[in-house]
Amino acid sequence: MEGVDQDLDQLCINTIRFLAADAVQKADSGHPGTPMGLAPLGYLLWTRFLKYNPKNPDWPDRDRFVLSAGHASMLLYSLLYLTGYDLSLEEIKRFRQWGSKTPGHPEQGHTPGVETTTGPLGQGFANGVGMAIAERFLAARFNRPGHFIVDHHTYVIASDGDMMEGIASEAASLAGNLRLGKLICFYDDNHITIEGSTDLAFCENVKRRFEAYCWQVIAVHDDGNDLAAMSEAIQAAQAETERPSLIIVRTHIGYGSPHKQDTAAAHGEPLGEEEVKLTKQNLGWPTEPSFYVPDPALAHYRKAIGRGKEAEAGWRRRFEAYALEYPALAEEWRRGMDRTLPEGWDAAIEEYRPEGPLATRRAFGEVLNRTAPRFSNLIGGSADLAPSTDTTQKGMGDFLADHPAGRNLHFGVREHGMGGILNGMALHRGVIPYGGTFLIFSDYMKGSIRLAALMNLPVIYIFTHDSIGLGEDGPTHQPIEQLAGLRAIPNLTVIRPADATETAVAWRVAIARREGPAALVLTRQKIPVIDRNRTAPAEGLERGGYILVETPGRRPELILIATGSEVHLALEAGRALEAEGAAVRVVSMPSWKLFERQPLTYRNGVLPPEITARISIEAASPFGWERYVGSEGIMIGVDRFGASAPSERVMRELGFTVENVAARARALLKRPEEAKARRRRAS
Amino acid sequence: MEGVDQDLDQLCINTIRFLAADAVQKADSGHPGTPMGLAPLGYLLWTRFLKYNPKNPDWPDRDRFVLSAGHASMLLYSLLYLTGYDLSLEEIKRFRQWGSKTPGHPEQGHTPGVETTTGPLGQGFANGVGMAIAERFLAARFNRPGHFIVDHHTYVIASDGDMMEGIASEAASLAGNLRLGKLICFYDDNHITIEGSTDLAFCENVKRRFEAYCWQVIAVHDDGNDLAAMSEAIQAAQAETERPSLIIVRTHIGYGSPHKQDTAAAHGEPLGEEEVKLTKQNLGWPTEPSFYVPDPALAHYRKAIGRGKEAEAGWRRRFEAYALEYPALAEEWRRGMDRTLPEGWDAAIEEYRPEGPLATRRAFGEVLNRTAPRFSNLIGGSADLAPSTDTTQKGMGDFLADHPAGRNLHFGVREHGMGGILNGMALHRGVIPYGGTFLIFSDYMKGSIRLAALMNLPVIYIFTHDSIGLGEDGPTHQPIEQLAGLRAIPNLTVIRPADATETAVAWRVAIARREGPAALVLTRQKIPVIDRNRTAPAEGLERGGYILVETPGRRPELILIATGSEVHLALEAGRALEAEGAAVRVVSMPSWKLFERQPLTYRNGVLPPEITARISIEAASPFGWERYVGSEGIMIGVDRFGASAPSERVMRELGFTVENVAARARALLKRPEEAKARRRRAS
Repeated sequence: MEGVDQDLDQLCINTIRFLAADAVQKADSGHPGTPMGLAPLGYLLWTRFLKYNPKNPDWPDRDRFVLSAGHASMLLYSLLYLTGYDLSLEEIKRFRQWGSKTPGHPEQGHTPGVETTTGPLGQGFANGVGMAIAERFLAARFNRPGHFIVDHHTYVIASDGDMMEGIASEAASLAGNLRLGKLICFYDDNHITIEGSTDLAFCENVKRRFEAYCWQVIAVHDDGNDLAAMSEAIQAAQAETERPSLIIVRTHIGYGSPHKQDTAAAHGEPLGEEEVKLTKQNLGWPTEPSFYVPDPALAHYRKAIGRGKEAEAGWRRRFEAYALEYPALAEEWRRGMDRTLPEGWDAAIEEYRPEGPLATRRAFGEVLNRTAPRFSNLIGGSADLAPSTDTTQKGMGDFLADHPAGRNLHFGVREHGMGGILNGMALHRGVIPYGGTFLIFSDYMKGSIRLAALMNLPVIYIFTHDSIGLGEDGPTHQPIEQLAGLRAIPNLTVIRPADATETAVAWRVAIARREGPAALVLTRQKIPVIDRNRTAPAEGLERGGYILVETPGRRPELILIATGSEVHLALEAGRALEAEGAAVRVVSMPSWKLFERQPLTYRNGVLPPEITARISIEAASPFGWERYVGSEGIMIGVDRFGASAPSERVMRELGFTVENVAARARALLKRPEEAKARRRRAS
Repeated sequence: MEGVDQDLDQLCINTIRFLAADAVQKADSGHPGTPMGLAPLGYLLWTRFLKYNPKNPDWPDRDRFVLSAGHASMLLYSLLYLTGYDLSLEEIKRFRQWGSKTPGHPEQGHTPGVETTTGPLGQGFANGVGMAIAERFLAARFNRPGHFIVDHHTYVIASDGDMMEGIASEAASLAGNLRLGKLICFYDDNHITIEGSTDLAFCENVKRRFEAYCWQVIAVHDDGNDLAAMSEAIQAAQAETERPSLIIVRTHIGYGSPHKQDTAAAHGEPLGEEEVKLTKQNLGWPTEPSFYVPDPALAHYRKAIGRGKEAEAGWRRRFEAYALEYPALAEEWRRGMDRTLPEGWDAAIEEYRPEGPLATRRAFGEVLNRTAPRFSNLIGGSADLAPSTDTTQKGMGDFLADHPAGRNLHFGVREHGMGGILNGMALHRGVIPYGGTFLIFSDYMKGSIRLAALMNLPVIYIFTHDSIGLGEDGPTHQPIEQLAGLRAIPNLTVIRPADATETAVAWRVAIARREGPAALVLTRQKIPVIDRNRTAPAEGLERGGYILVETPGRRPELILIATGSEVHLALEAGRALEAEGAAVRVVSMPSWKLFERQPLTYRNGVLPPEITARISIEAASPFGWERYVGSEGIMIGVDRFGASAPSERVMRELGFTVENVAARARALLKRPEEAKARRRRAS
């Protein structure tokens, strides 16, 4: 640790405090109190411990820093500006304004140096666990004796709110189980929440709780300003390699504010012009100008540039030596970090010739295991449902505390934690993460799925047991509205393949999609494998929706549109109607998102606007299907909760039979007004 | 405790074990292992501790029993049948069949004696916390010296999975904070999860963790068969009145099965005919017939009928004495338990004359506080956002450990826990529960919301900060797809009122709706109060959608349909278009669900099929709006994530301006094909 005098420390710390207070004041919106309380820790960490290069935020072996308390964004923005990232003081002054690099909460991909998008509490904490998992896996995979090319810490700052959120509990318990020794979390124990004192709702003993999770816990009892005590704690955390560490720092929200320190009023609104002034006076700070950055403070912070350059250069030398000795490994590592895929990884998919009937979850398991050997960085698992979701890579070992090279993760019954951890793994880069559970439990992890979509993360979800067709487990387990809910998330590619052949293509699409998450939605029950000699090839899935089959040589008068397990029903109903003389087109529509990315001409080719007799068939809520069936079509769906009974019985009772589909189609075709309207339009 | 001989105990215990094994075997589906392991605890609890009357499952002062490990449903069904509830052995034999009273997971309202619907893990645990909160509140409100009309325990059986789920952590922490001494949970510590040994993902010290939450923890180290030790633990738990108790019971999944005991194979599939036979032999049970219930066992269990009758009779005598002394209180208590509303409770809503501009969240706060004095059992709060969600009942006190009569709950930053707790409160009856958070965080509690809908529970959600209009907090906090997701849930009534006047009606509708949950979706930002002298009255909200205003004396050529904060935009755009000569109708559509409950004639009156030039305006994902705008209409929505900036700027940038709406409308009206089609149809 370099020697700096107390005055410079305080100068640097107060610089953060007043950048935060001034920025929130100018924006007339934001959270000043937490950055003010955390300024000493931020200063200490970023000047004496954190390994980073402000001029290359993407240096792969940097320490990861996660501000799980995302509302304290001004702490992070201040540090990024002060240490020399590509974030100007002008941007700080444009805090929370349209088009600025300083949005209300930190956004990964938007501001250089922001490792993850935080704000929804608990998520950042879980991301940190995921990053530490990725680091540990990659270290085990790539480091060699004398060569440590993957070797960094993950630091997380978490608030009371983070501690209260279930997702953090889930992730913390797993982190302890996995003995993630290079994960160091700070708990900003400021005793204040929005509704008042934390005592109102939170009297638990956090230290004891994390010890129960098998963490090392260090409490810094002082007022969050004792740099020496915090340094000692961080050193102790770094020294502990067998357990993650929680450092509890007692801080004071709105530190220095004469009237608002230690009150909820300092949390989520500007201090007020007058109070900012009084606080500056109280801490011996010039009241003018605002956004004042003393030169010595800036100079001290900016030493990070030199330190970072040197640190990265040292690592690059080490990496070159490694690449010389292990060129193939180095290449493989690079590919992982770049998110490129190994040549010919999908060859085994091309050769896949499934025999049915086969549940698409089982087809997925087969395809996963056909492709798994082509990857070294495909790593995932399930929220304690691996045998059911078929997410295990056979022979690839379990990722466990004493076996960090394994590729099968056991998340436990912790869906939300899994979601946040998958995001952290993807953010770290180097691995291709996936996670599985029943589709119904996507509800539990929705908060994390949304953030994956917002951050453009290539996370893959395997959601099985995808409809009432799961049968006996009943309405608590039968998804109804989940498909609609997931489809509505921007940038999430939901794919519900029709059979084993589409499942194989779906997996290829999911892996190849690197700009956002994908969810495969798979059946529990066995379904037929579509005979591709009599229909269009399964590659049509890549376009989201495609003509599977139609009455030859005739203009269709009816389009049946189906997804997943209902496609074979559409095929059978189509054949029945055809036998009665109707001209029918059957469209498989596994992915709305992929379909909507196609040009209008393609979409109109599949669903010609003038053919208005359309029926959607999907064993889920029909919510949203009006988009494709139009004003004159009908939807065969499930607009109620399900029921417990064997799969076929439930499907039959709720109308998923050839007879019902055909009957509804006949009625639609005969409906006089519609028929007239169709004729008019076709004319 | 009555004296029974060891043989009878074992006979009774094994009766449960083999009913479970046989039922799962016959259904060829289900979870035999957990009921077999928990049979001794179930037997003990239901024959010696639990206070219930099999002939009146609704007796208000019964103990509540929650099987959070819902997959162990056969434990509960066995006990219900054996103790004499209205559940026959025939129904046990129809386990998991269509129309039976024994679905795969317990369903409240479907099977007499089932207190809550469980299966999705962690939910039952949180429900138990909610029931204990309701009991404590009602006891504080209604009991009087010498009169204890509300005085019962809540028992929960939780599995490893329950312990791992974040929702349980959240609820447990709050239960400790609130010192819910009459909550007693059993942790079925069987060391097995679906993926194998719990060690794979769960090495935490549960005892220490719950002690950190301020619970009393008692570990029963024996094999879950030691009735004396378990009895002692339950007595100790009952004796502890200041802390909730966790009793850790080491059990053996699939107890007695020679090849499957203590293995994951006993968890989620039938043991197999042969193994059932071997298990019966192993435990000295006749291998035939299946579903064998020895007479002495049944007779012993059925003593519950006499006990229950007597217990309830005693309580009824006490209640009569209470009603004599406190007739008004007794009446009020009855009303609460019956879910009826006090006469004239909404009078203060009628008189509400809001002045704008006013955020609908603030209007809600005003209406809440106008009506709060008319209730004594309206109790709710927020997940640490009360000042923002405006959910505080002023002057009604906080519900705290040492002040259980308070009506303002502090849930902490625990949305999912809040959701599960609200369900438990509603299930208990006697209170009208509500809970608030930002709309974006409805994602965190989706699992619980869905169960409220499935159970027809009158829970009210207050979701504020309902769109990109919340401004600076940015995309992490700006809901996009949440409205669509919530609307897709069967039986959830989502209401997004257009202004303060509709908010008042929305609150009335939400309170009056007793057959399912309702969600009020409210703005952060100020919006105008609609001048009802110039438009239809706000009572139109009761029908879900209504004609707010239209060009007088002309047939509309354009319908603008909007909700919430976009209704005033539709009004202004409508005026602008009218000034240009167009005939415009503006429809306020606060609730799709309410609208869809209206007769077709009403719906067609509001949205006549022949008027196809329609525009929906909602600052959210347009997902699903095709239902109302039809094939020829357009949707003004947000099909991307939001952005951090002041509210007005974000709204403007994303197209929510009078100019943009008017321009889109002009283009729609001029689009030649559409215009032609409209003419054709109108002819």
